This record gives sequence, structure tokens and C-alpha cells, in this order.
Amino acid sequence: MQNYVHAIPTKVYFGKGQIERLPEALAAFGKRVLLAYGGGSIKRIGLYDKIMALLHAGGFTVTELSGIEPNPRIESVAEGVRLCKENNIDVILAVGGGSTIDCSKAIACGVFYEGDDLWQMIVTSGGFSKALPLVDVLTLSATGSEFDGGGVISNMTLNEKLGAGLTYPAVSICDPTYTFTVSPYQTAAGSADIMSHIFEGYFSREDDCELSDGIAETILKTVMKCTPIALQDPENYSARANLMSCSSVACSGIPEYGKEDTGWPCHAMEHELSAYYDITHGVGLAILTPRWMRYILKKDPTALPRFVRFAKNVFSLTGADEGALAREAIDKLEAYFKSTGIPMTLQEVGIGPEHIEDMAAHAIQVGRLDRAFVPLTKEDLAAIYRMCL
Amino acid sequence: MQNYVHAIPTKVYFGKGQIERLPEALAAFGKRVLLAYGGGSIKRIGLYDKIMALLHAGGFTVTELSGIEPNPRIESVAEGVRLCKENNIDVILAVGGGSTIDCSKAIACGVFYEGDDLWQMIVTSGGFSKALPLVDVLTLSATGSEFDGGGVISNMTLNEKLGAGLTYPAVSICDPTYTFTVSPYQTAAGSADIMSHIFEGYFSREDDCELSDGIAETILKTVMKCTPIALQDPENYSARANLMSCSSVACSGIPEYGKEDTGWPCHAMEHELSAYYDITHGVGLAILTPRWMRYILKKDPTALPRFVRFAKNVFSLTGADEGALAREAIDKLEAYFKSTGIPMTLQEVGIGPEHIEDMAAHAIQVGRLDRAFVPLTKEDLAAIYRMCL
Repeated sequence: MQNYVHAIPTKVYFGKGQIERLPEALAAFGKRVLLAYGGGSIKRIGLYDKIMALLHAGGFTVTELSGIEPNPRIESVAEGVRLCKENNIDVILAVGGGSTIDCSKAIACGVFYEGDDLWQMIVTSGGFSKALPLVDVLTLSATGSEFDGGGVISNMTLNEKLGAGLTYPAVSICDPTYTFTVSPYQTAAGSADIMSHIFEGYFSREDDCELSDGIAETILKTVMKCTPIALQDPENYSARANLMSCSSVACSGIPEYGKEDTGWPCHAMEHELSAYYDITHGVGLAILTPRWMRYILKKDPTALPRFVRFAKNVFSLTGADEGALAREAIDKLEAYFKSTGIPMTLQEVGIGPEHIEDMAAHAIQVGRLDRAFVPLTKEDLAAIYRMCL
Repeated sequence: MQNYVHAIPTKVYFGKGQIERLPEALAAFGKRVLLAYGGGSIKRIGLYDKIMALLHAGGFTVTELSGIEPNPRIESVAEGVRLCKENNIDVILAVGGGSTIDCSKAIACGVFYEGDDLWQMIVTSGGFSKALPLVDVLTLSATGSEFDGGGVISNMTLNEKLGAGLTYPAVSICDPTYTFTVSPYQTAAGSADIMSHIFEGYFSREDDCELSDGIAETILKTVMKCTPIALQDPENYSARANLMSCSSVACSGIPEYGKEDTGWPCHAMEHELSAYYDITHGVGLAILTPRWMRYILKKDPTALPRFVRFAKNVFSLTGADEGALAREAIDKLEAYFKSTGIPMTLQEVGIGPEHIEDMAAHAIQVGRLDRAFVPLTKEDLAAIYRMCL
């Protein structure tokens, strides 16, 4: 078990009606608010009106930044920074899923960025001295951005999508009822994202982390139990609430306590897909994950024991043939993703072989995949992409 | 699933050698340090010398408060408050287990207590406007005080031992190697304490908390796997590290996300035993827990499904007879405690029937046992105490 640091300053208000805490949460930082959101779903569900009513009653001044993209772009970050500076914003209020929160984190840091090129702030996770306070209202269970300090920003000009260490939300308001109207496609994709955050740490060489491995397995089982319920019965509070808790805890660092840095290989590969094709992050992860598993299991026989643990503890598989157990677990995972309605090939999401070499080369360049559970080369990544076609 | 709030400001540095972070952690708050510790085990293991060397090299001024009791007393709190005021202390450094940390939390708050009687601060969890910053170095895996805001203080004059909401540590340094020399008795007792923190929330009426129940089960299994290893091989880093992580996470609130307040019945009963007889907290909990389980299972048949889940998910028991499954799980738990060397009757720790009625009456008076998983009366508590004789 390796050393770790736990430091999450975020206060989470979880459950029905927690939006009533919003005015107090914001007022701790000031009255001038940048309200950041995406494509308008928060208007459809009445959340925009509810929040505006609370803000007006509380005497807040609101500047709006709308239209933040599903894969948020550096141009939106720049626009948010401009609005914050022009309007002397005290606190950013992000209302949405991980895209809106990630973009808002970058804006919060960008206000204090000392360089000329905000993209360099993302590339280096640095160059800012502090950050504006950030409060969010979560509307999608997926990225865990409500409970971590990272953010992922895209630069479509450069075909780059990069994760950066930015800032933690001061307060996250997590009301599962706001996810009742999330589409089946986005529900399934969000769940795949949660699971991927677990897989990236779970497949590791540190095999004495009983607590974190057990928590990781619990999250995987909980997501696979609750997602089909949420798909069948979108207003099932228990299912939506468990998924929302899983989203946060998956990114809390707790399921990785004591683990080495594995370089998060599936995220590295998926960021290339999104950067080139702007696809839904969770869908890309679901397509990649079973293929990555099959590939590394074949490449490195020492990976087998971890897959056997996965098979036994997550899928309750039994049997003496360890190789068969591992393969059956991967098949079951792929079948699970498929059962939630995720298109499980790249072709189905409009991706062909045209950029495979470029994506593989770039993922190797920006990633740390030499330290992955099974270290990966450019050729390995290209082979995994081809398995997904 | 009920609403919850997650708010833990504590930064945890976990692992070997993290003591090197101590000077920086303290310096953030000032240079005048109250060093609080217990009976001297930190001197035996060389930790006292190591810390004093770091503090002297860092130019800190150190005032010492030693001899904090295993069940820390209000007199020690008062002495600490006096020392802090007299020496204009900037930050408290607690080095030890939960007793030292709990006492230090009360001191930190007591410095700003506005009343005349510090015991009233414990009784009401209030009367203080803020708290001195607290940094701790953990030497025992048990109470979780390194990662929560509560503390338990005893008043032996009144035969009272009460939990209070106080303050969170700013920084906790958790190095499992400091627990290598913990005696088998205290190792077993600490592990029973960790497990009890789980049981108090796990046995609840909210049965749709898949994530928190799964995490709770993981902690129980991890503790029961690692404690025998630590007893057999005291310097087994993996076992000690898992126990230390479990100690913190058990009290993080995460294993109780979405659960109702159950009044923590075993803690309420144990606090009476410690208040009257000054016994080791974890030992009292281990003695009480299986008897409490048998009693409530008999008193209220609607408790059965939760015990069946416990039997299946924690002890991997199978079978169609649900009552038998529940009873077998409780028997296995008692056998586990016994196997770790804990005396499993009150007689063995010098407790007779003389105060049972008083303890039962007082636990009902100060507790909230009408809201327990199976609500308990004074007569119920007296019966459970008698089952433990």
C-alpha cells in the first residue's frame, strides 16, 4: 500500500430540496454571481427558474454564461474569464453536469491566470495563484467533478482534450431528483463514466489495498444494480440517489487509497476520441474498456490475478479455470454496457480508422501510460482502437 | 435514502514517513504549540523524540500536556485550556489515539468557551464561538477521531461519559508504523471500536443505501481479515495500514450516507460502562454488541432481514432458514471477537450487576434510543447488560 493524501474541502449537501441551501452557500463569498450552464436542460426541468427566484430573493446580481459544450472548450473558459473580470464576479455558480462544472473550475482559476494563453493553464495545470470560489448544483451523475479538483477541457483547434488539476468546489448541491429527466443514453453514459473512474484505479499492482479495493467493487456493483433500475424507472429516487453518491465517491480518491498512479489509460484513450470526434465521454469509455481489458490480459499474464478478483468479487463468478473466469467477467461487463443501450463499437458513433495512428501517438505523448497497470505503447493503443471499430 | 451533508475539512497525510509534513502543517497556524499526549507510549517508540527534534528545528515553542487518560477526563480538558490561555498557544498538536485527540478537540473549543463550567460545553456541544486549530499524529487505529468532528469526554465525579460535537482536525498524520507496537489487547479493542462505528449505522431502517451498506460491509470484512494478521505479525504494514484507513473511513459519515440517526445504542450503553468502571471502550463495545444483536432480533422480528443481509454479505453464509442465518452470523461475530483475545463477559473485566439499573436509566436519559433500529427502553438496556455478565 502506497502513501496517500486525502484533502477534499468540498461541502456536499445531498438529497431532495437541498437547493434551499444555495443562497447561504453563495452569500458566504459575495453577491455577484456568474451563473454557468449548458444547453438549456436546466430550463426544461424548471431548475433555472427556481435558482433565479432564489438568487433574486437573496439580492444577488447574476451574470449568465450559457451554452457550455458537453466537451467544454477553451473558448468557453475564455468567455467566462472575461465575464468574471468585467463584472467583478465574487462566486461562480455552475449548474449542470461535469462539463459545466469542469468549465467553471477552469474559469475560476483562469481569472487569476498570469499568462497570455489560457490553454497553457490547462496543459500545465498551473500559472494561477488562486481561484474564485465555486458552488455547483449537479444535474448528472457521471464525472465526479462535484467532489474533486480536476477538470477536462477541449481545444478543438488542436484536437486536444486534457485533464488538469484546477480547484475544488466549495459547495456541491446534489439533488438526485434533478437527474430524473436525464435521457437513457446520458444515464447509461454517465454510469459508464463512474465505473471507468473505478477501473482506472482498481486495475493496479498494489494488491493489498483491501479497503479501497472493496469500496471500488462496491461502487461497480452498485452502479450495475442501479443503472438498469434508473433506465426502467427514471424517477426511482433510490436508484438515482445511489448513482449520484457513487459519482462523487468514485472520484474522492478513497477507492484508490494506497494505489499507485496508473496513468488512467482508458481516459487517455477516450480523450483522443472526444478531441477528434466530440463524442460522449462515457460512451467512449464503455467502448474502450472491455477491449483494453482483453488486450492487456493477453499481453501480460501477470495481469490475470486482478481479473480473477474482479470476476469473483464483482460478478460473483466461480470456477477453477482462472483464464476462463477473467474472460467471462470481461464478456459480462461488455454485455452489461450493451444492455444499458450504449453503442459498443466506434463505427456506431461515426468513428473510422482514419485517425487511429494520430490518436495513439498523441495519447502516448500527453499520457503517462508507461506506468499503467500493463504499460502501453503507441502500437498497443492503436491495436486497442482497432479492436473497437 | 435520507438526505445527508458531507463536510470534512481535515487533510490526511497517510503512510510511512509522513511525519516530515508536521512542521509545515503546524507553521500554517503559528509557532506556539501545545503538545498533548497520553501515558508515554510515544516516548517508548521514539516518536516523542522525533517530533521534538522536528519542532525545535522548526523554531516552535512547545508547551506540554501529558498524561491524558484512556477515557479522557474533563479535568485534563480544563488543564489544557489553562495552558493554552497562559501560553498564547496558536495550535494544538495531539499525538496519540482517540483519547488524546478527543481531549485536544475539547481543549481547542474550550479556549473559546464562554461559560464557567467546561462540562456544560460537553453536555451541550456548544457555548464556544470557534476553536484553536488542531493537528494530530495518530498512534492507534480505533476511534476515527482523526477524521471526524466529535469527541468523548468523561466526568468521573458524575459517572458520565458523553460524546460531543467539537471540531475537526486541520491535519491528521496517519503513519501505520506507529501502531506496530500497539499491544494485542489494544489492537483487538481498537478493531472492535472500528466495527462498532459501522454496526451503529448499518443496522438501520433505510435499506436502499446500496453504496453506504456496501462500504460498511467492506470495512467489517477488512477489519476481520486484517486484525488477526496484525495480532500474529504486529509489524505487518499492509494489515496495520488497512486498519488505520478503516478507522478513518468508518467515522467519515460515508458508511452512513442516507441512513437515519439510530442513536448509536451500543455506544450509549458502553459509555455507561466506561463512566462507571473506566474500562477500555472497544472491549465494552465487543462485549455488548452480540448481546444487543440477539436481544433486538428477538424483540422485533422486522429486524430479521437486515441480519440476513449481514450474514450473507459479511460472513458469506448461505441457507434458506433466515432465522438460523441471523443467529449464525451473530455467533460468528462473537467468536471472532473472542478469537482476537477480547474478554467477552463483563465479569472478566471486573463488572458486576451492581450499577445495571443506574446505567440503564442514565443511558436512556442522555441517549436517543427511542430512535434506534429497534427502539430500546430502560428495561431493554438492563436486560442486555445482564446478558453480558
